[in-house]
Amino acid sequence: MKCLLNDWRRTNFAKTTTPEISGEKVTVMGWVHEIRDLGGIIFVIIRDVTGKVQITAPSKKVESEILEELRKFRKESVVAIKGMVQEAGKAPNGVEIIPEEIKILNMANQPLPMDPTEKVKAEIDTRLDSRFLDLRKDNTSAIFKIKSRMLHTIRDYFYSQEFIEINTPKLVASATEGGTELFPITYFEKEAFLGQSPQLYKQMMMASGMDKVFEIGQIFRAEEHDTLRHLNEAVSIDAEASFMDDVDVMKILNDMLIQVLNDINDKCSNELEILGHEIEIPKKDFPKVTYDEAVDIVNSNDVEMEWGEDLSRAAEKALGDVMGGFYFLTEWPSEIKPFYVMPYENDESKSHAFDLMYNNLELSSGATRVHQYELLVKQIEDKGLNPAGFGSYLKAFEYGMPPHAGWGVGADRLTMVLTGSENIRECVLFPRDRHRLTP
Amino acid sequence: MKCLLNDWRRTNFAKTTTPEISGEKVTVMGWVHEIRDLGGIIFVIIRDVTGKVQITAPSKKVESEILEELRKFRKESVVAIKGMVQEAGKAPNGVEIIPEEIKILNMANQPLPMDPTEKVKAEIDTRLDSRFLDLRKDNTSAIFKIKSRMLHTIRDYFYSQEFIEINTPKLVASATEGGTELFPITYFEKEAFLGQSPQLYKQMMMASGMDKVFEIGQIFRAEEHDTLRHLNEAVSIDAEASFMDDVDVMKILNDMLIQVLNDINDKCSNELEILGHEIEIPKKDFPKVTYDEAVDIVNSNDVEMEWGEDLSRAAEKALGDVMGGFYFLTEWPSEIKPFYVMPYENDESKSHAFDLMYNNLELSSGATRVHQYELLVKQIEDKGLNPAGFGSYLKAFEYGMPPHAGWGVGADRLTMVLTGSENIRECVLFPRDRHRLTP
Repeated sequence: MKCLLNDWRRTNFAKTTTPEISGEKVTVMGWVHEIRDLGGIIFVIIRDVTGKVQITAPSKKVESEILEELRKFRKESVVAIKGMVQEAGKAPNGVEIIPEEIKILNMANQPLPMDPTEKVKAEIDTRLDSRFLDLRKDNTSAIFKIKSRMLHTIRDYFYSQEFIEINTPKLVASATEGGTELFPITYFEKEAFLGQSPQLYKQMMMASGMDKVFEIGQIFRAEEHDTLRHLNEAVSIDAEASFMDDVDVMKILNDMLIQVLNDINDKCSNELEILGHEIEIPKKDFPKVTYDEAVDIVNSNDVEMEWGEDLSRAAEKALGDVMGGFYFLTEWPSEIKPFYVMPYENDESKSHAFDLMYNNLELSSGATRVHQYELLVKQIEDKGLNPAGFGSYLKAFEYGMPPHAGWGVGADRLTMVLTGSENIRECVLFPRDRHRLTP
Repeated sequence: MKCLLNDWRRTNFAKTTTPEISGEKVTVMGWVHEIRDLGGIIFVIIRDVTGKVQITAPSKKVESEILEELRKFRKESVVAIKGMVQEAGKAPNGVEIIPEEIKILNMANQPLPMDPTEKVKAEIDTRLDSRFLDLRKDNTSAIFKIKSRMLHTIRDYFYSQEFIEINTPKLVASATEGGTELFPITYFEKEAFLGQSPQLYKQMMMASGMDKVFEIGQIFRAEEHDTLRHLNEAVSIDAEASFMDDVDVMKILNDMLIQVLNDINDKCSNELEILGHEIEIPKKDFPKVTYDEAVDIVNSNDVEMEWGEDLSRAAEKALGDVMGGFYFLTEWPSEIKPFYVMPYENDESKSHAFDLMYNNLELSSGATRVHQYELLVKQIEDKGLNPAGFGSYLKAFEYGMPPHAGWGVGADRLTMVLTGSENIRECVLFPRDRHRLTP
């Protein structure tokens, strides 16, 4: 069958088909991006993951069967072409391929549900419904190439700091941080839930003596909000380190992100150019603003906020306008942070919790954790939760839990920052929200 | 409070406290592994992630408050010690620390639910119930250090081959490969399921032009089996590549695993020694045995097997005894492989599917996939499934799906092979099976 590869193999990508190899015979494979049939000559642009390459078929030089095959081409079909490379100043990469053999590996139906070669962006819902076509656009695939590189750099940073990678379960017997906002599952005869965070597991790992651990994995939150910054399934980058406090792990987060910014600038310059996005790399450590200072800043910018409240969206915007870029928001009121956050020794109303913000977007939350059993039980009770529901977690604090601290970063939100995207759905291949469960 | 770090920071790990720095003042932090109070002298062994270091407190040299503090130590408590390093031939690493300041960061309750310094292995259930203590044993933590390194090497291999990392959703609207063995979730007003494999998503990514993708993530299977090789939540290493066939992706898998074996041998030699496990690195590509040949081998070893059946456990064992080590099992009957597997062109009863085995353990399944829309619909129907349930998946095949192939490897099973573990529960931090949903 002509649609099978059989013994055909790609010898060259678009990018590696250059004037230096003119005269050589190559096999390229990809999608039909454009066809122009001028009668005496047919031009076809083939697109692959690396870029575009031109097929040029003058009727005087190319066999008539090949011309017939080329005329059957439909846009976005998958084809393989063997031919001779020759220099061609005006074509992409400065070369063209004179076709000698052709395979139509898969013909695309017409019309397409969306046109991936169109310059105008379709609505996000149309794009998500046909995500595979949307990804054929340079500016969509650029986002996910950057995201892949971001995860690569983050792992390299963790490895360089001797963090151990862990995988913790997503099927959990009870609520992680309280009883709300969980997706229930039927687990054989039992009820179970989807993990909303690896928080309790990475803390238990501190009691294992593993010292420093990280996990990059899915989290699930049954929250009903419908914003440009929330999804019900997300990827979280979680780190936890023993014998460290909030200041230590803020430094780790800061250094890691600087490495990410540098790497994306260096290794994804082409993708950034496609997106028209520039990354500015802070010269110093990210500034820190305390919660107290933030309340003042917000109020002095005509947004009302009382001490002890979480930041409203308007407050985040007011603060982001003043601070700009990356900054840590520190010394949060204990009352609005989870039970596992360490209070200040001299003032229990304040905590060793921090958020990392980028403009008005919360990217990360972290803290020194409570490592003392009695204090932890007290804080669980103070939040109106029942310590009996935290049996195996609490047990880890009874037999040698070291002081520790950590954070979680939203991978999808960080991708928004790196790519200049306004909607988190742009940065997730197949997003899950209140209304979307497919594809 | 004495239990807080405050301005104390670890300057040295056990491993970095060596005779070269004798005379220097260090701060070490870790768990109390052993205490011997001989009256005139107290020895304490402190354990951290890198190993053990000895604290030596002769009553003539050390202040009496320090001696008092040391006498309060209980095994497995978390302590920090500042002191002077001096050479000591018989101590671990050839050094001892003469203590000058001490902090008890967290006292361990007694008795411990299991003793992590005991040489005898407790029952697996006892160990899993107190996994944080179990992990304090060298031979348990060695497994997870090897697993972390394994994932590191695998990602490096993918990066070197220009695979793009993807994250696909775990919340899915319908069954991936058929209607059975799924955990149902309540997703707001809808019913959803936990993904049993990223199969359909990584195939859809092939239609995106991304060329080569990988994902390392959780999969969920509601199977009721209770064996040493199955869990209900597992980590799967998935790869899919365009313009390739089964032979091409077998080669990728083979090369990747050789790199893993070499890396674990080089970088985890200490952990392998602790486990008493040796890794043998095949000198050639893994051998291939066809399904037809396997049926003959099995039958000639007195295990009954008919052509067209999946391998029973007894058949796997018979085959594993003959083959040994890593080997590919190829040319499977189409009937017992999923609908997305490409049949042979000249004999539809056989398929381009393969398994990778290690002795009698299945590590991976892969195949050339069907990329033709009509054939795929036919094969879905032939399996008794309804193509209407595969709407967004099938759509990707209508508009330019390239030929492609791929595989999935069970990360937990691969860890069994690398560490010589007989029970998959040894290789998962917090395993989920028919009976276990905690910790």
